Amino acid sequence: MSIITEAPKGSSSAQPAWVRPEPAVAEPVLKVYNSLTRSKDAFVPTKGKQVDWYNCGPTVYDASHMGHARNYLTQDIVRRILRDYFGYDVNFVMNVTDIDDKIILRARESHLLARTTSSTPSLTSDLISTVQQAFDAYFAKRIVKNLPSSVTPAEFDGTPSEHFALVRERDTKDAEWAKAAREKDEKWGLYLTSLTRAGEALEVAKRKLEGQGGSGDVKELVDGAADVLGPYLGETVRDSVENPIQVSRDLAAYWENQFFTDMARLRVLPPDTVTRVSEYVPEIVAYVEKIIQNGYAYEESGNVWFDVAKFEGAEGEYGEWTHEYAKLQPGSKGNRKLIDEGEGALTTSQGKRQAADFALWKSKRAGEPAWASPWGEGRPGWHIECSVMASAILGKGMDIHSGGVDLMFPHHDNELAQSEAYHGCQQWVNYFLHTGHLHIEGLKMSKSLKNFITIEEALRDYSARQLRIAFMLQSWNAKMDFKKDLISDVRTKEETFDNFFSNVNARIRQSDRSSDGKHHFDAPEFTLMSDFHTAQHDFRVALCDSFNTPSALIVLLDIVSKVNVYIATRGSAANLEPVQVIAEWVTRMLRMFGLGEGPVSEGQIGWGKELGEGEENGEEFEKKVDKYLKALVGFRDEIRKIARDGGESKEILALCDRFRDRDLVELGVQLDDGQGADGGALYKLTDPAILIRQREEKAAIQADKLAKKAAQAKEAEAKRIALLEKGKTPPGEMFRPPNVPEGTYTEWDEQGLPKKDGEGKEVAKSAVKRLMKEQKAQEKAHEAWLAWKKEEGEK
Amino acid sequence: MSIITEAPKGSSSAQPAWVRPEPAVAEPVLKVYNSLTRSKDAFVPTKGKQVDWYNCGPTVYDASHMGHARNYLTQDIVRRILRDYFGYDVNFVMNVTDIDDKIILRARESHLLARTTSSTPSLTSDLISTVQQAFDAYFAKRIVKNLPSSVTPAEFDGTPSEHFALVRERDTKDAEWAKAAREKDEKWGLYLTSLTRAGEALEVAKRKLEGQGGSGDVKELVDGAADVLGPYLGETVRDSVENPIQVSRDLAAYWENQFFTDMARLRVLPPDTVTRVSEYVPEIVAYVEKIIQNGYAYEESGNVWFDVAKFEGAEGEYGEWTHEYAKLQPGSKGNRKLIDEGEGALTTSQGKRQAADFALWKSKRAGEPAWASPWGEGRPGWHIECSVMASAILGKGMDIHSGGVDLMFPHHDNELAQSEAYHGCQQWVNYFLHTGHLHIEGLKMSKSLKNFITIEEALRDYSARQLRIAFMLQSWNAKMDFKKDLISDVRTKEETFDNFFSNVNARIRQSDRSSDGKHHFDAPEFTLMSDFHTAQHDFRVALCDSFNTPSALIVLLDIVSKVNVYIATRGSAANLEPVQVIAEWVTRMLRMFGLGEGPVSEGQIGWGKELGEGEENGEEFEKKVDKYLKALVGFRDEIRKIARDGGESKEILALCDRFRDRDLVELGVQLDDGQGADGGALYKLTDPAILIRQREEKAAIQADKLAKKAAQAKEAEAKRIALLEKGKTPPGEMFRPPNVPEGTYTEWDEQGLPKKDGEGKEVAKSAVKRLMKEQKAQEKAHEAWLAWKKEEGEK
Repeated sequence: MSIITEAPKGSSSAQPAWVRPEPAVAEPVLKVYNSLTRSKDAFVPTKGKQVDWYNCGPTVYDASHMGHARNYLTQDIVRRILRDYFGYDVNFVMNVTDIDDKIILRARESHLLARTTSSTPSLTSDLISTVQQAFDAYFAKRIVKNLPSSVTPAEFDGTPSEHFALVRERDTKDAEWAKAAREKDEKWGLYLTSLTRAGEALEVAKRKLEGQGGSGDVKELVDGAADVLGPYLGETVRDSVENPIQVSRDLAAYWENQFFTDMARLRVLPPDTVTRVSEYVPEIVAYVEKIIQNGYAYEESGNVWFDVAKFEGAEGEYGEWTHEYAKLQPGSKGNRKLIDEGEGALTTSQGKRQAADFALWKSKRAGEPAWASPWGEGRPGWHIECSVMASAILGKGMDIHSGGVDLMFPHHDNELAQSEAYHGCQQWVNYFLHTGHLHIEGLKMSKSLKNFITIEEALRDYSARQLRIAFMLQSWNAKMDFKKDLISDVRTKEETFDNFFSNVNARIRQSDRSSDGKHHFDAPEFTLMSDFHTAQHDFRVALCDSFNTPSALIVLLDIVSKVNVYIATRGSAANLEPVQVIAEWVTRMLRMFGLGEGPVSEGQIGWGKELGEGEENGEEFEKKVDKYLKALVGFRDEIRKIARDGGESKEILALCDRFRDRDLVELGVQLDDGQGADGGALYKLTDPAILIRQREEKAAIQADKLAKKAAQAKEAEAKRIALLEKGKTPPGEMFRPPNVPEGTYTEWDEQGLPKKDGEGKEVAKSAVKRLMKEQKAQEKAHEAWLAWKKEEGEK
Repeated sequence: MSIITEAPKGSSSAQPAWVRPEPAVAEPVLKVYNSLTRSKDAFVPTKGKQVDWYNCGPTVYDASHMGHARNYLTQDIVRRILRDYFGYDVNFVMNVTDIDDKIILRARESHLLARTTSSTPSLTSDLISTVQQAFDAYFAKRIVKNLPSSVTPAEFDGTPSEHFALVRERDTKDAEWAKAAREKDEKWGLYLTSLTRAGEALEVAKRKLEGQGGSGDVKELVDGAADVLGPYLGETVRDSVENPIQVSRDLAAYWENQFFTDMARLRVLPPDTVTRVSEYVPEIVAYVEKIIQNGYAYEESGNVWFDVAKFEGAEGEYGEWTHEYAKLQPGSKGNRKLIDEGEGALTTSQGKRQAADFALWKSKRAGEPAWASPWGEGRPGWHIECSVMASAILGKGMDIHSGGVDLMFPHHDNELAQSEAYHGCQQWVNYFLHTGHLHIEGLKMSKSLKNFITIEEALRDYSARQLRIAFMLQSWNAKMDFKKDLISDVRTKEETFDNFFSNVNARIRQSDRSSDGKHHFDAPEFTLMSDFHTAQHDFRVALCDSFNTPSALIVLLDIVSKVNVYIATRGSAANLEPVQVIAEWVTRMLRMFGLGEGPVSEGQIGWGKELGEGEENGEEFEKKVDKYLKALVGFRDEIRKIARDGGESKEILALCDRFRDRDLVELGVQLDDGQGADGGALYKLTDPAILIRQREEKAAIQADKLAKKAAQAKEAEAKRIALLEKGKTPPGEMFRPPNVPEGTYTEWDEQGLPKKDGEGKEVAKSAVKRLMKEQKAQEKAHEAWLAWKKEEGEK
């Protein structure tokens, strides 16, 4: 596509030299706290503005909790900052671990318990005996092993059930003893609870079977004893699980789905690519093979182990560097407890040459899901999964790898070693980001401490927005304490934004941007804008400082406070243009962090609103409802004015009518007084055009009626006047000319009654009588005429 | 704020060295086509990521047309790219020119025409004669001067009306002749049309006045002859305009409002700051004064002129550089036609020393708006306005100045000269961006060519989205031809996106993200993702190349096509995750350009949807608005009831308060009486929970106050009663037992005053005097006690 640039007219003369601009302000450089250096390093992605990022996803076997929320929400915030503030094209890859010892155990136990329930129609002594064995085993393994030394062996002479009764009694009554037991094993209390439930279920079932009645059935027994029966079955009859792959996968699929539902509720963006371990087994096998080829792993009895000693210090292809093990946490090398935890509950150390070595491939044991490999059936070790999937999607290296701080050793250190052994490279990850731990009210979250909060529970008490603000008030990599003080701080800050948004929106809606005046910049406006530009710069500086969200939030709150002061001091003279610009920016920055809900409109001010099914955008709604509110408030304002001026009821009623017939009609609100359910007005939303037409028609009919009435009145008046005018002639004159034709009569008496007719003849008596009657009538008419004239004269 | 970074466990051992990453791909650098160099210069803002940008806004005297659309929409696209793609904090300032010769002329003519109509009740020969004179003058000035030479003088012997009849006949019948006339002056045809309309209106009016009937009246005559009568009145009776400032401002305010309405319909973001010339006159006067002081302007007869010769080549303060005139278009220096056009129709050259000089301040002529200045009443020249307002808001310089390419000379060159003369700086603007011309079907848009399209007209035929795509298919600075081919190209491309979005959305809706399989990346997915990342890179490269939107659009269409091919070839095996990621990115990039409508949701795929005006009568809306209406109607009902019962103002005010504090609070409507723009109430839509809490807090404080008050009242009452109780003893008894100890006195007079003490001695005169005083006081107290008791008894 060629671009034709317009040549300016008269371009013959040369332009003078242009001065290349130089930045007067040094632009801050984005630095990121990197676990590989334990310092803030300048962020330099390998491929320009493209960022390859692999994040350690969840192992899906249980509900997500606040620790997960902290981890994934925090990463979401960082990801959004990179994408939506710094403008990187972020390629965010996350795995879902659906092959794992915890999943296998949990899935297998659930499966065997369910099978037990469904395959046992009614209580049998066999079942009860199995549960009793599970009970005894659990008691021996979990409770007895961790008893405080103060328990004498003599106390343990009876059956396990008798012993258990003793332990429970001691635990309830002797606080010191109970504390000592828990100090030995912090989960001890939970074990005791599980065992108690199982013991009770057993009692009920035994009584039932012995015909002593009660409600006990198979389901009740299995459910009640699940915590002790599950592990027992998982150990003893695990080889009876027919399709272990499907059993594991079903559980994993369920919890994966729950996980992404929780994430969506927290407004965590979905990854660009999700990789599931179960879909990458062939790649894992090939990967392990190559590591063996490269000399950094060995196979023994179907297990493949990574050879840490071999790897450490091994030279690169050209000897220009050496491999290093445990780059992240070198001090943890050889930490047996951490290494064992990392290997998983179902790992044996069969064939392992050195304590530091770790499993790449685990050979199958009965009841475990397994896939074919050159070393026989088996499954991948935990650490290798991430190495393989990250390499599959992102290739030979990446810019960012992230995960919770507890994964640093051995998981991430092993992952680095494997990948660097596989690729033969010095540095597979350039920036390793670890999100900090979460404590609850100062304590580690744990089920035994009863401060364990699932995401679902958290979202009952706090909104996703509040949780996000809470996390943003901490540095992403710092330890955080989720406690009351923090929540009240979050609420205060949220309310500050709330008030700001509603105040600014109200003022903007009720102003007229095109109005004259109030646009010129005076000192307060220059100060405000200068503060705003400083805030924008400080905000950038904060985010460049390893995504310092606590500082960035303070910058936002600070400029909000400055705008509030500006509005308060300028009052009605406030120029709303800079106010609007700043409020829009604050909104955009909050939305950038993933704060706020629902769809966002251009130029929006405020959090926004989540839309229900079929609902409109909140802001749109506010805009539309505004005219009704304006009418309402205006009406009330007027009423108050009249009342304060001591106006009369008549005026108020007239205003009420006018409001109904003019203002509301134009809003499409039709009001029928007295037609409402409670005798008040009935209201309807209608097309204003129709209402206006109706109003006009009504007015026209009214006008027509009035006109007819006026015409009638005019006619009546004319008749009245005609009648009155007839009385104009005084009765004495009525038979004289000109009131009768000249020559009708020739002589009259003093009353003016004719005596002789035109021919000089006497007027007949009967005729005179008739004329007298006429004269009598005229007397009355004349009187009326005189009265009328008098009245007219007075007017 | 201190950040506690978690020290990893076992951090005692040192970490191995970290390899600082190096970019393997050179990041493209944003370059901008700069009119000051006529080349693409690397974009380096002076203040880091902050971009100061001044854009030449509209002169508001008529409807905006497609030329405006091209200019402002194109700038909007560039502004959005800088802000939302490159992440700059853009400070976008735009002026509105509301003092200008064109506005003065147009406003004055409209005003005088309207005044003529309203002040002339019926047709008079005077009016007809005035219109005839206007007709003759217009004919002579516009038509005769541009007649083709083929018209012989002999034809011009009669009256102007007779001549006009000749010309019209010739124009209708002789195509060659008409063409020649239009070639001499392209507006000639329009003049002829105006004159014809005026001539016809005159004929009608004359017939009517001569009693020959017809419908003619004053309005018809004035409207029909407006094009010729307006300029005539504007010349001959302009000194009769009483308030020229208001007359001009009213017209400008109307068109400014129309302009911003048009811009909003085109989805052009409002500027961060709008400056109106009429609000910056004092700043302009001060600016001109300083230019005079600096020696680059001179005053003559109330006009101030910029001294181009003095400026050109003048040395900077330290002689390290020289001022240059006409940096943008040096070849146009001395171009008389351009200079005169730039000066405006109402400028005289009074006192101007050299042809290249231009007006900074124009002295007032009759009928012109004017402001006080050291040089007498006058108004600013056109060019100085922008210099002053840009300096007022942005200070000593700016990163970007933009405007239409036709403003390059003299407007922008003069602006640069003025500003550099004022600030004493070498380079006031670092990047000058000029948007290219717009032609319609290959021709310059003009009313005479009948290809003139207002924005309102354009939006009847095309959507705002289509117009934006059309402009994006051109480089912002290239000449563009708005023609049928282009529109059909726009429609094709729009449809490609349409189909893509609906296809992807349908597939995603009908799939289950959590489903097994279809997630693993195989070769097609790797290819697709690699194409996607290439597209992201190419897109960035395109935008870095001076905002090359045509290329960027092609990148988007190209990846869309690749996704379509992927879906088609993979069929039901398609992995929708990468498809969704790409479709989301395409959506985000289109929205970034300002394409798409309505609010946008996170992860949205597709243009979005504007919520139509008609949708507000929807059922959902009615449901939601109902509660507000219910409140409104209920309030009115109650007010009417009180008023009809003849209630007092006090009750009404109490109701108003209750309505605010209870009903509205529960609706989430917060009312601040007296805080509204017009002194009425300011209303805000807020979370009802917050309002209720605030109300409760207020109530608690109130209750607390009341309780304190009650306690104080109780205490006061107790004191009062204690005091009253002291008056219980009748004064005659007060010195007798038991009111004094038995034996204090032994004898009393009849008033009960002691005569002898306990020992039978006379009480001393002085003591008696004191006791009398006491008794006197007790009399009063006893009276009070009696009154109190009586009152108590009555209760």
